[in-house]
Amino acid sequence: MDFKKKQTEANLKPGDRTVPERKIPVPHRDISERAQEMIAAPYNVFIDWNLNPPTKDDWSKIVTKVSESSAPAVNKLIEDLGLTVEQLQIGGVKCYRLTPENIPENHRKQLVIVAHGGAYVYAPGIGSVREAAMFAAFGGYTTISVDYSLSYENPFPGAIEDMIDVWRAILTEYDPRSVAMTGTSAGGGLIMATILKIKELGLGMPAAIAPSSPWADLTETGDSYKTNEWLDNILVSYSGYLGLAAKLYANGNDLSHPLLSPINGNLEGFPPTILTSGTRDLFLSNTVRSHRKLRRARVPAQLHIYEGISHSQLSFDPDLPETREAYGEIAAFFDQYLIW
Amino acid sequence: MDFKKKQTEANLKPGDRTVPERKIPVPHRDISERAQEMIAAPYNVFIDWNLNPPTKDDWSKIVTKVSESSAPAVNKLIEDLGLTVEQLQIGGVKCYRLTPENIPENHRKQLVIVAHGGAYVYAPGIGSVREAAMFAAFGGYTTISVDYSLSYENPFPGAIEDMIDVWRAILTEYDPRSVAMTGTSAGGGLIMATILKIKELGLGMPAAIAPSSPWADLTETGDSYKTNEWLDNILVSYSGYLGLAAKLYANGNDLSHPLLSPINGNLEGFPPTILTSGTRDLFLSNTVRSHRKLRRARVPAQLHIYEGISHSQLSFDPDLPETREAYGEIAAFFDQYLIW
Repeated sequence: MDFKKKQTEANLKPGDRTVPERKIPVPHRDISERAQEMIAAPYNVFIDWNLNPPTKDDWSKIVTKVSESSAPAVNKLIEDLGLTVEQLQIGGVKCYRLTPENIPENHRKQLVIVAHGGAYVYAPGIGSVREAAMFAAFGGYTTISVDYSLSYENPFPGAIEDMIDVWRAILTEYDPRSVAMTGTSAGGGLIMATILKIKELGLGMPAAIAPSSPWADLTETGDSYKTNEWLDNILVSYSGYLGLAAKLYANGNDLSHPLLSPINGNLEGFPPTILTSGTRDLFLSNTVRSHRKLRRARVPAQLHIYEGISHSQLSFDPDLPETREAYGEIAAFFDQYLIW
Repeated sequence: MDFKKKQTEANLKPGDRTVPERKIPVPHRDISERAQEMIAAPYNVFIDWNLNPPTKDDWSKIVTKVSESSAPAVNKLIEDLGLTVEQLQIGGVKCYRLTPENIPENHRKQLVIVAHGGAYVYAPGIGSVREAAMFAAFGGYTTISVDYSLSYENPFPGAIEDMIDVWRAILTEYDPRSVAMTGTSAGGGLIMATILKIKELGLGMPAAIAPSSPWADLTETGDSYKTNEWLDNILVSYSGYLGLAAKLYANGNDLSHPLLSPINGNLEGFPPTILTSGTRDLFLSNTVRSHRKLRRARVPAQLHIYEGISHSQLSFDPDLPETREAYGEIAAFFDQYLIW
């Protein structure tokens, strides 16, 4: 039978959409050459998407290995960007403070707190500061990268508790109206969960947040978990390490709990929020659903989607034009809402 | 071989992404039940996606038939919404004026011009005013629906010439700072092309525009033409009537010409723009690329993406909660930028 007819007949009944096997080309318009290379790249460039470590100890070994192998590049990045880095404890939590050579006048009293990504299991130590480094340099901000507890050592709600401990300490030094929070993937979800917790505790709110491609729903709920499966070349599928990492972090708790999947929380009273994702992102729906839910809750919220980009791909390469663009949008958003 | 391993091996070389055949379920969180039904619906609910009329005359017959069959529903919609409808000529172009019973004080001197969708070939006559009717009723605006020339009678640049004739006439009656333009699909692309033409002619600019799921690129360029192929249950694929309609409208001209594919134009000086699409929209990339290109041109531009929604699905059903939400966002955006 003719392919088109067959395809139409496969979709004659209401319900699941049947989509045929396909070769999908790399998009080439309005995308930098470097981004086209990233989009064209095979699966597994950084981390094997289909890892399945049997024990916490195996996780620990893998994470340490990945971290050690990424550390030199991060140290070089910090140097190339001309940043001063200090390791310190804030509220008893390990953190890094990154200070750029030049801070614009209006950013001098401001602070950006960064929660790194890595499915709550990856990126301890210096490997965690890549995003904070780029944001410090491109935006001209003092940034704090929180080296929060990872799930194989201290699962949920460990990371949130660390974020709250840091936040309480920051509140003694900064006007919260001059502080923003940002983070990608698990870092974005963690920021949203931290805001829910800040609301619950009645603490001062940061002035704005930027969850990029946030892991807002730890269950496999959201259209793009399926529509972008096998297309996103970073996460590839929830059926890889991602689903396992969700369970490792949740530690027996219901994955749909609002502090694990903050999309299920009450988002009223959230600070102004800027969200970023890409058309191939497995977390496109996490991002889009968060945006709509914030708008429905009357929170000023902006959405930015980048052509062809997979999960968190804008947080890897400081020389990617789209990375500069995305960080520029976030900094411009913060400038609207942070006092100085 | 294990499926995951096979899938990884199919993507070991840089380049095209290989995606397996799949069944993709209907998303169910943060989506109304009615929208879930729309997402679940088979292909071809309104128009056969794979039509291929051999001549202009055949097109004309099909279009007339579709139009006649949709007219009673549109007339009922106008009545249900309590609108007054008048057929009139503006600048020599057939138009409909829709007036709601109640117009809020700040909208009384404002006007919204609507360019209907339909791939430049569908929806002549009263069938074209569905969107203008909803916008008039939900937003509380006097709206003008332009019944512009269709491609089987008067191809490119016929529709743009009609829009410009209407615009010149409107400029004699309205302050352009109190006028907005909106439209979905071909209507969205037509508005963008009209703005390029207004720039070229040096006429006054409307205060804001709302191209929804705009046909900004008439060539099959943009990631979602492929990523959302067979997934979008409205357009389904560029290989159906869509690509044929592009050629019919272009009438031998290069499809990438900026007045045919306005994404290729210089978007500097565009009015503030609000863009709407869905995660399953074949035109998701048309929307996202337009948003990014406008932002790069320093135009105030907002993006709104709805979970699971296919092409132009928010312009069909006045009772769909997501339709109300989308029109509400657009009206709120217009309120920011139109004088009153």
